[in-house]
Amino acid sequence: MEKITASIITIGDELLIGQTIDTNSAWMAQQLNAMGIWVKRRVAVGDNRPAILAALDAESAEADIILITGGLGPTADDITKPTLREYFGGGMVQHEATLQRLMQLFESRGLPVLQRNIDQALVPDACTVLLNNWGLAPGMWFEKDGKIYVSMPGVPHEMKGIMQDHVLPRLQERFQAKAVIHQTLLTSGMGESFVAEKLLAFEAQLPPYIKLAYLPSYGLLKLRLTALGEDKVSTAAELTLRFQEMKALLSDIAVYDEDIPMGEVLGRLLSAKNKTVGTAESCTGGFIAHNITAIAGSSAYYKGSVVTYANEMKMKLLGVQEQTLREHGAVSEATVREMAAGALQLLETDYVIAVSGIMGPEGGTPDKPVGTVWIAVGSAGQLVTVKYRLPYDRERNIQMTAVYAMNELRKLIC
Amino acid sequence: MEKITASIITIGDELLIGQTIDTNSAWMAQQLNAMGIWVKRRVAVGDNRPAILAALDAESAEADIILITGGLGPTADDITKPTLREYFGGGMVQHEATLQRLMQLFESRGLPVLQRNIDQALVPDACTVLLNNWGLAPGMWFEKDGKIYVSMPGVPHEMKGIMQDHVLPRLQERFQAKAVIHQTLLTSGMGESFVAEKLLAFEAQLPPYIKLAYLPSYGLLKLRLTALGEDKVSTAAELTLRFQEMKALLSDIAVYDEDIPMGEVLGRLLSAKNKTVGTAESCTGGFIAHNITAIAGSSAYYKGSVVTYANEMKMKLLGVQEQTLREHGAVSEATVREMAAGALQLLETDYVIAVSGIMGPEGGTPDKPVGTVWIAVGSAGQLVTVKYRLPYDRERNIQMTAVYAMNELRKLIC
Repeated sequence: MEKITASIITIGDELLIGQTIDTNSAWMAQQLNAMGIWVKRRVAVGDNRPAILAALDAESAEADIILITGGLGPTADDITKPTLREYFGGGMVQHEATLQRLMQLFESRGLPVLQRNIDQALVPDACTVLLNNWGLAPGMWFEKDGKIYVSMPGVPHEMKGIMQDHVLPRLQERFQAKAVIHQTLLTSGMGESFVAEKLLAFEAQLPPYIKLAYLPSYGLLKLRLTALGEDKVSTAAELTLRFQEMKALLSDIAVYDEDIPMGEVLGRLLSAKNKTVGTAESCTGGFIAHNITAIAGSSAYYKGSVVTYANEMKMKLLGVQEQTLREHGAVSEATVREMAAGALQLLETDYVIAVSGIMGPEGGTPDKPVGTVWIAVGSAGQLVTVKYRLPYDRERNIQMTAVYAMNELRKLIC
Repeated sequence: MEKITASIITIGDELLIGQTIDTNSAWMAQQLNAMGIWVKRRVAVGDNRPAILAALDAESAEADIILITGGLGPTADDITKPTLREYFGGGMVQHEATLQRLMQLFESRGLPVLQRNIDQALVPDACTVLLNNWGLAPGMWFEKDGKIYVSMPGVPHEMKGIMQDHVLPRLQERFQAKAVIHQTLLTSGMGESFVAEKLLAFEAQLPPYIKLAYLPSYGLLKLRLTALGEDKVSTAAELTLRFQEMKALLSDIAVYDEDIPMGEVLGRLLSAKNKTVGTAESCTGGFIAHNITAIAGSSAYYKGSVVTYANEMKMKLLGVQEQTLREHGAVSEATVREMAAGALQLLETDYVIAVSGIMGPEGGTPDKPVGTVWIAVGSAGQLVTVKYRLPYDRERNIQMTAVYAMNELRKLIC
């Protein structure tokens, strides 16, 4: 079977002046790749008619599928829709479902509906409309000369919704000449290159129809096996064997058999054991609590957190001793131990995560440089502490600390 | 003078399977833009000879300057250098300074020098070498048919170093580029289409060299004015006038005159007034605290937070009355008022943000459907409450609530 290729066109001046970092393309590429569709090119152009038309010509000459995001808003600078109508010919029609959705939305908010809102329900009659359940601008599916073109809003969650609700299933249906199955192993604690060394032999003897992809992601390394086969059942069976083989080689760093956030991994574990957790955070400033509560249903195992940024709050809320802070400092094993003990009492949970560190860019000292983090996790009976030296910027140091801390508790519980 | 245009080509399979999010392009675009060079297109291609050659042809037809990153490593899949040699003709030569740097580096680390490392000092003789002070692979500057091509490593800090040391100064020298100036107004509280209505006349009478862009972003609408002119001073002066004009039209929804996160807007305001803030969060689960502490230096105005997810914690930590919860429920004005009052006492801050809501997908009731959020902000002297009905998914409901809550406090303080 011919390799199916895709090209991604992102539209918006904000991409060309560096105001927006394009995270959509990476996500779309992962989804397509997991389906066995190869992304050949990614192109970003401005809100500019000739540039968009030229990109449509150039990319359709390169790929079977052209995914387009951006430029579908209600304002003057959003010219993607008229440009697509021009490119594919025909006129504009009212899309009833979108119009009704739009009317209801404005009504529910007690807002008047403007002509330019109603116009958002106008679509080129040459397209199949993909209803947007997350926003106003619908997705649009075009076909021309054997090529598929899909236009979606640039707002990430709207694009993802339309991709998952409509585009991926349709592409799967259209190109299901082969079964494409993938399974992802979450790992943590070993660098990509070292994992690659460990998997050298394993990867070398993989059949050509099973591919291994390394997907590093904030403190985790995701190892995705993708199998392409004629028959779904036998392909799945073989993939499972290979996956178990790979997992056995990485038993010391394996985190979970599914590609879900660390907060959900921890949540599933706590639910299964019917235990509760709370957090006492300094340097992460509530980000660990956010990771836990971002998961629907987390109230079943999460009761609360305290963010004690100031030392006085560490003392007042968690009973950290002034002497401990004076002798060891806020970023120390002694302090996170007292934070954890205090939080277990205050929050009345089975388990706790406590962290204190220096995320930067300021605040470092010779013996405690920026990136120094102490983590304590566990229960009243068993407390584990670990120290990290993170080399990243503030934002990433915070994200890494959260993932590492949640993973430490996971290791202790499971 | 003609508008100087650039195109950015990023090379690497990792960009096409979604393994890497391209942050280089945004940074490069910002730098070029500040110089008055307009990025027309950004293209990502794989480590693939024909794809690279095709991209070089296509982009040089579009732009005056072609910046290329990636594919300069020592491994087999790094084919950018031989492909560039082929494209520009000529042979390969040893670059002495690079070779010496490389030798010293390996010696200092006590590592053996492999042939593939030595080969990194080989460069096409058609290029001007741009010494890389942060890594091994040098930058390469080519000129052909009046176009400039610059190849750099994809490692962000190496690319940035070569850009700042060599590329930007050379481009500055070469082009008397036009002045391009941006100014962004953050707004909140009015939909894109309604703002567009308000700005209809303003936008219609903008001169052709000033463009207005609408950039919606989680609870905020960013309005960016971009001016292009011969003279930096006069262009900036006119842009400022237009910006003030626009701001006056939107005085009721204007948030800030700069494109920074809401957490930073609030932080600057608190710093200026030398006041402190804390948060009492239920449904946002620490996300507001995270938004505040994500800003470097936030310890100057932020002391701590409590996340009271369970009702028992609302009572225990914040002194919310059991009767209040029983009569009004956790998601009510009465409860957020008591949460706010309790947090002001507990956290000993000048201001507080308290939120309680139902983020979904579960937990809604007929009179309190999913998306219902109560927010209380203010001080001991003055507490403001507001209710929202958010129509989004859990993740976005949380993000919107955080932005709206921080903005409510901003409105009360400023």
